[in-house]
Amino acid sequence: MASQREIAERAGTSLKTVSRVINRDPLVSVVTRERIEAIIAEIGYEPNQAARMMRLQRSDVIGFLADGVATTPSSIDLIRGAQDAAWEHGKQMMLFNIEQGAPSHHLADSQLTAFRAEAVIYAARYHQAVKLPPSSVPRILLNCFDPEGRHQAVIPDDYALARGLADAVFTRGYRRPVFLNLSKTIVAAGLRASGISDSANALGIDMTPRIHTAVEEGNGRVTFIADRLLSRLMAEPTDQRPDVIICGQDILAMDVYFDLAELGFKVGRDVAVVSFDNLEPIASLLKPGLSTMELPYYEMGRRAMMAAINSPNGPPVTQRLHGRFVDRASLAELHS
Amino acid sequence: MASQREIAERAGTSLKTVSRVINRDPLVSVVTRERIEAIIAEIGYEPNQAARMMRLQRSDVIGFLADGVATTPSSIDLIRGAQDAAWEHGKQMMLFNIEQGAPSHHLADSQLTAFRAEAVIYAARYHQAVKLPPSSVPRILLNCFDPEGRHQAVIPDDYALARGLADAVFTRGYRRPVFLNLSKTIVAAGLRASGISDSANALGIDMTPRIHTAVEEGNGRVTFIADRLLSRLMAEPTDQRPDVIICGQDILAMDVYFDLAELGFKVGRDVAVVSFDNLEPIASLLKPGLSTMELPYYEMGRRAMMAAINSPNGPPVTQRLHGRFVDRASLAELHS
Repeated sequence: MASQREIAERAGTSLKTVSRVINRDPLVSVVTRERIEAIIAEIGYEPNQAARMMRLQRSDVIGFLADGVATTPSSIDLIRGAQDAAWEHGKQMMLFNIEQGAPSHHLADSQLTAFRAEAVIYAARYHQAVKLPPSSVPRILLNCFDPEGRHQAVIPDDYALARGLADAVFTRGYRRPVFLNLSKTIVAAGLRASGISDSANALGIDMTPRIHTAVEEGNGRVTFIADRLLSRLMAEPTDQRPDVIICGQDILAMDVYFDLAELGFKVGRDVAVVSFDNLEPIASLLKPGLSTMELPYYEMGRRAMMAAINSPNGPPVTQRLHGRFVDRASLAELHS
Repeated sequence: MASQREIAERAGTSLKTVSRVINRDPLVSVVTRERIEAIIAEIGYEPNQAARMMRLQRSDVIGFLADGVATTPSSIDLIRGAQDAAWEHGKQMMLFNIEQGAPSHHLADSQLTAFRAEAVIYAARYHQAVKLPPSSVPRILLNCFDPEGRHQAVIPDDYALARGLADAVFTRGYRRPVFLNLSKTIVAAGLRASGISDSANALGIDMTPRIHTAVEEGNGRVTFIADRLLSRLMAEPTDQRPDVIICGQDILAMDVYFDLAELGFKVGRDVAVVSFDNLEPIASLLKPGLSTMELPYYEMGRRAMMAAINSPNGPPVTQRLHGRFVDRASLAELHS
């Protein structure tokens, strides 16, 4: 199979003439037309890249189904990581925004099959279980996992993230933590409560009465109730009230900063605040800057893409990634 | 051209048998093989959807080249708007993250040509001029424009946005505004300065000494210098110092909230703050909630997609969209 250019070279004509023959333009002599048609009959003509791709073993296309991810600020680093890894390895990442199970999902699936995607990364907005419909294209789950363990998955190690964060807090001398957790229905909430509790137990601190759910869900909306919790908790005597507030996410920490200011406490001086995410620009714009455990989204995106490229049909292992503690000024060294 | 199913129906065989013939599996009788091959020779066989798509006039694919947009929280509403409009009209939006002029850009371009995209939307992170290389696929520019006016474009009407914001400020009784503007090199900065100045002029207020560039650029990094500006401006006597701070973007406003708290001023009570963007969750998490002029990104995304669907080869008009003033508590009614 040859391109128009190769056919023109072999026929000793211009590219334009070959194009005219192919497009049945009458402005070509019969002799020339017949010579070109003979060459095409002999070696074949390939109209475009899609056709070329269809014949090749590898399409170099990796699909990326973003279930809300591309429109959620906190998780776009998943896309950045996967995109960078794809570029570095000469793969084309084809990104579709979808809603799981909706027509958009089926459409994207069939499109990716038609384009012979070598593998498809399915990315979720937050760490959760997902059950995908069967597909002939291998799947890599990103920020989510199959409850029956049928797919490769790359997820954050929420237990280790929480344990690492709590260790940093206790190392600085804090001993009266409270954990303002996300909704109990979220996978990460349970794992983080365990991680923090185990770290605290090692120092003889019982976290049970110190963990509070700081969000309320209703009418499809999530509301922070940190203001109510803190006005009660911070009313305790100085030597009993919390010396550090561990928040389930950075935007909750932002809310907590304002709640504490309202109650007359200065973050970093009167009480420490730490969190999970490292959501920029919020984390560094808060004053004092927020000390927070970064979720390893960028690296997770990279790992998922590498799995899609190197071992799309590999065994269904789960990679759990630890994060990086970004130390700003909201967790001061405690001198008391 | 027919699918395997249609060939099987016509031959009176199972689908499996047709598949075996096509894949040269010897487990088919010579008679059956010859019958099926005769049918294929007569009506043709179409191996997959990509081939079907190649023959169709319309691919129903619209490309979306996101120059950093998909990884920039503030502009992902451009994607959401375009995506929603595509879904509503049965089009498949194929999204590529690119960097303008880099290999990623050329790769995505050639892929979209191969897949016969009907049109391509090129989206920029912020309102700017872009010069794209020639392409056979029609382009719609989103949040950017061609300096020579060769392409359809959908951009924010920064002059009208600024004028609307300033009108809201003056209507509430404020008379001593300062405008903390973005870098002068940004298209929006000049347009907004004009909009605010014209609104102020109508009341006899000269904005010239009241506009300050609040960002410093160096080493590829942007730094806010609102703290320095405000410590000087807010040190003026009560009846001369600013009564409202107009910020060039919400994250600058967030910085200003903390700067003012540091200087002992309470936003909404001692001084008003307004801004441009309506970047969530920041705008509503700030306390008091930030009154801000929303950039019409979602609607811009929709308009670009509608142009791509309905008039990809239409005249190179520019649509300038106004925004919506989201009134929270940082711009109180002034009683003085």
